[in-house]
Amino acid sequence: MSSRDSVEDSKSPLRVAIVGMGTVGTAVARILTEHGERTARRAGRPIELRKSVVRDLRKSRGISLPEGVLTDDLEAVIADPEIDLAVHLIGGIEPAQEILMRLLEAGKDVVTANKAVLCQHGPELFARARELGRSISFEAAVAGGVPIISTLAQSLAANQITSIEAILNGTSNFILTEMLSRDRSYAEALREAQKRGYAEADPVMDVDGTDAAQKLVILAELAFGTRVPLAAFPRQGIDALDLADLQYARELGYTVKLLAVARLGNGELEMHVQPTLVRHDRPLAKIDGAFNMIAVEGDAVGTTWYSGPGAGGPETASAVVADVIDAAIGRAALTFPLLDVRRNSPLPLKPAEDVARRYYLRFHVEDRPHVLADIADVLGRHGISIASLIQHEADEPNGGAQSAEGADGAAIVPLVIMTHRTAEGKLRAADRELDGLAALRPPRIRMPVAD
Amino acid sequence: MSSRDSVEDSKSPLRVAIVGMGTVGTAVARILTEHGERTARRAGRPIELRKSVVRDLRKSRGISLPEGVLTDDLEAVIADPEIDLAVHLIGGIEPAQEILMRLLEAGKDVVTANKAVLCQHGPELFARARELGRSISFEAAVAGGVPIISTLAQSLAANQITSIEAILNGTSNFILTEMLSRDRSYAEALREAQKRGYAEADPVMDVDGTDAAQKLVILAELAFGTRVPLAAFPRQGIDALDLADLQYARELGYTVKLLAVARLGNGELEMHVQPTLVRHDRPLAKIDGAFNMIAVEGDAVGTTWYSGPGAGGPETASAVVADVIDAAIGRAALTFPLLDVRRNSPLPLKPAEDVARRYYLRFHVEDRPHVLADIADVLGRHGISIASLIQHEADEPNGGAQSAEGADGAAIVPLVIMTHRTAEGKLRAADRELDGLAALRPPRIRMPVAD
Repeated sequence: MSSRDSVEDSKSPLRVAIVGMGTVGTAVARILTEHGERTARRAGRPIELRKSVVRDLRKSRGISLPEGVLTDDLEAVIADPEIDLAVHLIGGIEPAQEILMRLLEAGKDVVTANKAVLCQHGPELFARARELGRSISFEAAVAGGVPIISTLAQSLAANQITSIEAILNGTSNFILTEMLSRDRSYAEALREAQKRGYAEADPVMDVDGTDAAQKLVILAELAFGTRVPLAAFPRQGIDALDLADLQYARELGYTVKLLAVARLGNGELEMHVQPTLVRHDRPLAKIDGAFNMIAVEGDAVGTTWYSGPGAGGPETASAVVADVIDAAIGRAALTFPLLDVRRNSPLPLKPAEDVARRYYLRFHVEDRPHVLADIADVLGRHGISIASLIQHEADEPNGGAQSAEGADGAAIVPLVIMTHRTAEGKLRAADRELDGLAALRPPRIRMPVAD
Repeated sequence: MSSRDSVEDSKSPLRVAIVGMGTVGTAVARILTEHGERTARRAGRPIELRKSVVRDLRKSRGISLPEGVLTDDLEAVIADPEIDLAVHLIGGIEPAQEILMRLLEAGKDVVTANKAVLCQHGPELFARARELGRSISFEAAVAGGVPIISTLAQSLAANQITSIEAILNGTSNFILTEMLSRDRSYAEALREAQKRGYAEADPVMDVDGTDAAQKLVILAELAFGTRVPLAAFPRQGIDALDLADLQYARELGYTVKLLAVARLGNGELEMHVQPTLVRHDRPLAKIDGAFNMIAVEGDAVGTTWYSGPGAGGPETASAVVADVIDAAIGRAALTFPLLDVRRNSPLPLKPAEDVARRYYLRFHVEDRPHVLADIADVLGRHGISIASLIQHEADEPNGGAQSAEGADGAAIVPLVIMTHRTAEGKLRAADRELDGLAALRPPRIRMPVAD
């Protein structure tokens, strides 16, 4: 009888190694070592931190671990038959993916927070884990401390999920809140986010929508039993947004959020991550700062909302340790095999051109007769009808930072149009014609509206 | 080998009886019969509805069940060895409690939505279920479709929960929203709630705080490992509130909510259910209508929020069926034994007099010199300091519905005081002296402020 067969013996400890001791790993180690009585009570057996793998043994982490726990020898930990479960907290794709696979092959259950690896290599990793009779748990991979994975996998299991609308990137949400509430530019708000530790020195994946899209792939797979590749759906970040657009949206009664959406309609799955206008009285519009919120709609329960910190050391460690306890109890071994998406018939992805929504459009136009008529004509000929419009008076010539001049001295003024519901494809076709209008200047902004 | 030992055989169906076919029972039956493929896929085995026990076989329920499922013979269902699990959906205390116990004794796992029975008889029922090796699941007993039970029992297991603040009664929340948004009296808003089906013909338990307090007892037991009897903590409903108080609160920047609070501080547990002023920008203040929200604070995760429909047939059935699936998978059998509160050392309950908060006070006073000084003097001598105050001018004599006259013709005007943080006990002592002030008229309103 191998050590692995003793999971049901409530007296034997679950022996854990943490691989990767950043802020999350350190917080996990802290809970496991400082709150051992608590975790043992909740798990029905002791949870014992055997090893913490770091790259640099000399780096201070503000935590004192028992003699012999800290190690830089990953190979020894992978090979150690006395480790039952590995907490995998390595970022990026490689070598994170390879290490995760090798931990499974070595007979360990894995708890991971790495959304990028799950998004890109989930199917192979899940299939191999099942062949090996091991489990992969990943509550911490999406929305930090908010338990959205167990909600979709277990608590809402009676439902056919019909839509997920979510704020999944706290950095972007902080920046959007900061811009609007303090009249700051994107660049200023990003610097503030970096100063406060909400954004990395290299924030590209956060602000270009990639991070939110990776998380959406994971949620959509659980909710709809369909794996959609990252490249298959539209993804746009907040990095091209102007404060002016947030302000116009507010004037119209909306708040701009980086919204990740996966929605089931007529047997097709609609997915996108885009800055989106959300009506100001909806719960998603009211989430300010570095928080996440997920609105889930199911055919029985209707809509439920989940929100909280989407990142941070102790916050994410809360989810990691919940997964460790789940594995210690034996629940993870029961849950994981049932997450198999191959049990479902995959849903076709709705082509982006066919996704119909209302749209916010901002143009920069020369302030002269007929420009509006020309734009309306192009939109009209593509079947796009205008619901409302904002055109403020031009500033006095050379008046303010917002005004500029066209070739022959006409002022350049912003024109904001809200359309009725229209397919993205029609807007793309109209775009090509709008390119030909001499009175239009870059940039041209387009954001969908969440209904 | 008895039929009960085959839980792990993924081919054998879980055989279910529903006891009580009201709106929730009917919705559960609908999911189990109309979405059998879905529930079997999520559970890894078929879930078979064998019996639905009703009182009156002739009553139409808008659902057609297979031949032989509908029965009015509860005794036969209890005695039936081929029923593995009972969905217990009988309201009230007796005979609901007795039936639940007999279902356990007959060897069945139980899923229940009955918060009153769990609140009053939970310990005996849980202890007996453990002796019998059976489980009781109760996600549906609190907050309808919002998965707060599994969140506390599993998802936040890494944390010491430090506070729960919740809106747990949708009827009360609907009435409060209706009063303030439409300038309606309590009686008018209650009638509207009844018209819409949010309130029963006899709404007493909803509006007097009992329903919310029963749910708080259950949540506090999971979060703090301490069972507090219903009678041991202050409980007050919304049935004595005036529209005027909601309006004054709004003027001060707060929204009045029926807030259920369980909070850990200095090794003591503070619990109360009371109409409470919540700062208007807090998530709990923004929950309008017949919804629930639970804000949970843990030492690792910080605060997370959960919201959605707190009642309704399909909404509650979502939670019931999730519990049935959990039992079918075998997770309930692993989770239930670890909910044993006796594993913890119970926390002492903080005496209500010692609970310190800020308070909203409304007086009706004769509009004459020295009245304010007299009140301030009483409060001051009891160590209660005034933070802010609203006293509008009196209406012209006999001017409006809000004004009245004192004995000698002085107008009666409202006086609203916000106190600094003070212990409830000091206010109670001051109350006795205020009773002696001739210039004060009933009613005297006191509501705590959530910090």
